Amino acid sequence: MTALLDALPADRVLTDGDVVGSFVHDEAEWAPHGTPAAVVRPRSTAEVQAVVRACLAHRTPVVPRGAGTGLSGGANAVDGCVVLSTEHLREVVAIDPVERYAVVQPGVVNDDLRAACAEQGLWYPPDPASSPWSTIGGNVATNAGGVCCVKYGVTRDYVLELEVVNGLGEVVRLGRRTAKGVVGYDMVGLVVGSEGTLGVVTEVTVRLRPARAPERTVVGYFDSVVDAGRAVEAVGAAGVTPSALELVDRHCLAAVDEWKNMGLSVDAAVVLLGRTDAPGPAGDAEADALLRSFELGGATWAAASTDPAEAEALFAARRLAYPALERLGPLLTEDVCVPKAAVPEMLARIEAAAVRNDVLIANIAHAGDGNLHPLLITPPGDADARARAQVAFGEIMRDAVALGGTVTGEHGVGLLKRDGLALELSPEVVAMQRAVKAALDPHGILNPGKVFPS
Amino acid sequence: MTALLDALPADRVLTDGDVVGSFVHDEAEWAPHGTPAAVVRPRSTAEVQAVVRACLAHRTPVVPRGAGTGLSGGANAVDGCVVLSTEHLREVVAIDPVERYAVVQPGVVNDDLRAACAEQGLWYPPDPASSPWSTIGGNVATNAGGVCCVKYGVTRDYVLELEVVNGLGEVVRLGRRTAKGVVGYDMVGLVVGSEGTLGVVTEVTVRLRPARAPERTVVGYFDSVVDAGRAVEAVGAAGVTPSALELVDRHCLAAVDEWKNMGLSVDAAVVLLGRTDAPGPAGDAEADALLRSFELGGATWAAASTDPAEAEALFAARRLAYPALERLGPLLTEDVCVPKAAVPEMLARIEAAAVRNDVLIANIAHAGDGNLHPLLITPPGDADARARAQVAFGEIMRDAVALGGTVTGEHGVGLLKRDGLALELSPEVVAMQRAVKAALDPHGILNPGKVFPS
Repeated sequence: MTALLDALPADRVLTDGDVVGSFVHDEAEWAPHGTPAAVVRPRSTAEVQAVVRACLAHRTPVVPRGAGTGLSGGANAVDGCVVLSTEHLREVVAIDPVERYAVVQPGVVNDDLRAACAEQGLWYPPDPASSPWSTIGGNVATNAGGVCCVKYGVTRDYVLELEVVNGLGEVVRLGRRTAKGVVGYDMVGLVVGSEGTLGVVTEVTVRLRPARAPERTVVGYFDSVVDAGRAVEAVGAAGVTPSALELVDRHCLAAVDEWKNMGLSVDAAVVLLGRTDAPGPAGDAEADALLRSFELGGATWAAASTDPAEAEALFAARRLAYPALERLGPLLTEDVCVPKAAVPEMLARIEAAAVRNDVLIANIAHAGDGNLHPLLITPPGDADARARAQVAFGEIMRDAVALGGTVTGEHGVGLLKRDGLALELSPEVVAMQRAVKAALDPHGILNPGKVFPS
Repeated sequence: MTALLDALPADRVLTDGDVVGSFVHDEAEWAPHGTPAAVVRPRSTAEVQAVVRACLAHRTPVVPRGAGTGLSGGANAVDGCVVLSTEHLREVVAIDPVERYAVVQPGVVNDDLRAACAEQGLWYPPDPASSPWSTIGGNVATNAGGVCCVKYGVTRDYVLELEVVNGLGEVVRLGRRTAKGVVGYDMVGLVVGSEGTLGVVTEVTVRLRPARAPERTVVGYFDSVVDAGRAVEAVGAAGVTPSALELVDRHCLAAVDEWKNMGLSVDAAVVLLGRTDAPGPAGDAEADALLRSFELGGATWAAASTDPAEAEALFAARRLAYPALERLGPLLTEDVCVPKAAVPEMLARIEAAAVRNDVLIANIAHAGDGNLHPLLITPPGDADARARAQVAFGEIMRDAVALGGTVTGEHGVGLLKRDGLALELSPEVVAMQRAVKAALDPHGILNPGKVFPS
């Protein structure tokens, strides 16, 4: 601590127990956390470097933290660590409309970047449901996805260049700002999604796209998640690439409506929300194809939305599903991703796991890319229900891997999915990943214990 | 050798001097090469593994080789090495139209994969000019780009999963086949573009897109490369994303015409070829925007092509420029990539380097993403001209870095750009890359001396 206090202006360091307490974990309520020695809030790259160097000198773990909206415990404190919050690094440094990139500090909130881009007719696509709160640094750490990924890809697809304080306390620039570049290894792609275990990101340059055409929404009601899954499979078979294809079940809609009173009077067990942003007649054709696919899957009702406000309300409800359900009790969030054709089977297995273990499981999903978020809900204080939910959580991960899927599509491994990582990757691949970690963090100070057990 | 002969059926191993001689270098004529102990042509993953294990046991370097069309010396033999040719690993294992991926062995030729996909209404975008000859394995090794990258990205953007024999002789599967996945580090992205220095790729799963709308071509003639560069800058400023934006100069067109007698009667110093594949009215608007941008740049003549055969001939000429110029004398190929706004300045500096050093420099370029391929041509046997060309080569790399660009956009570092790598990356970043190399190839047998000096 003395080293830290020496290295930084005093107001950057928080050590008061109560204040520190609000920085000890992210939104993965079920993941364990320790007690940090301090929380630091640096205001420049040089200050981040000073923190990392002080921690290096004392072999103190550094746990980088964005907005704390993570869902896997990746930002949870370990005992004696320094939590490095990026909340005061929130400048949009530059937006270049000709080269189409933006340069931002890691603490910039996703929606704030998107708004700044929109002012110049540009668009930063990655849109996690947490976009009103989560930061670009956190999005980079987890390789965050979102609603539009089904057509536009994930965070890694947009990161061109990173400034990073590495495991030796050096400030390095990785990647490039040009459209292409192959000089040496893809260190940017390696750091994106590494959950703070390979370096502390201090600046991010992201590719932008031109603003797109307005979207049209197609809504479908279904009697079961499995029917909705069949509709998703039909969309894949139809060769359409929607700009969104989201699934929300009745539990989620009811929880949002109860909280926000949005008047979502939906008479269905499950709703699919499809969107197309293709302009002109191509958009008409895609909307038609979505509609036909929903009907093919067994929709009880399906239509192109004629009311933009209604369509927006449904998407807002989808984004609010997580915080709305959180109000009902401790939530355990799954994040499996399976092949499109396996979506109906995976949804059936999730239902079976709910019944078998007597656990309430609500479903939201980026259904179009097979990324499912079953939400396991337990009554507050019910240890037995919690134990049953843990069993179901493990079963769902195993089912996803058995169907050719992955245990985490976009939330990251953090603490909650370390067993899942071992389930999915061979010991040889885990050893390769650990070798990379050891090569770039030889003193083991960067978010130790996350992704792999330390 | 005995170990190799024991490990493989005898017909997989070539040791005859003349035959071996055709496997010692790629198309980077100016890069040095050594003499291999043997060339092996395995027919299965197990045979690749047997080769790597035999080489590991004897600390013999393994130099993986696709079709040998590389332009940086990445596949050049080192003395005493085993050249591992993938030419007999050429099966298209599977194409899945619903999940939209293809699984191929590394020796599959790029155009053959594209043809197989087209039969199912699917499209594999990366299209290096070498696509009639180069293999997917080689494309993966160099993270190959091509003509459509300006809109659709490069090889890395399409590789989902790799089977690799790693530096410990283990067969590992990296990545995933689902649309998303964040379990651990992005080992696939790390291996793509690593030029055979991190493992031998034995199977590749690539993402596919639906077949696209037919393209429309806009042609512009210019009096100078700098004018053409201004037109490229104008396209960027107009906010259009063409599906191709290629530059070909008079030297290239004349060389192709002399070779193939295609009747390219072009009355211009430089031609720009723009394309749009946006369907319907959006395509009309994009073609108009390209035309206006060409005129803004100072085109002496510009028009939307009404003759698909003529447009195709111009693109064919662009693809044939390299082999056509190769017939005239030893070629040194540059591959710098600069920001779009810097294209005119970079082209002016290339011209200045040609004049200053008295070297003939022809130009082809993926102009739309700032990826320029000045081709330095010297008379056969003229050592003095060759020395001057080497000086110009170095100057062009330095200019690219000074303008915020990179020394290699898509060809790779190999042997020719090792000095360029040191010019572009800081010593700290080079040390990080070397640490990754040492972690994954602890015995240093995988294509040693490429990318970094060994």
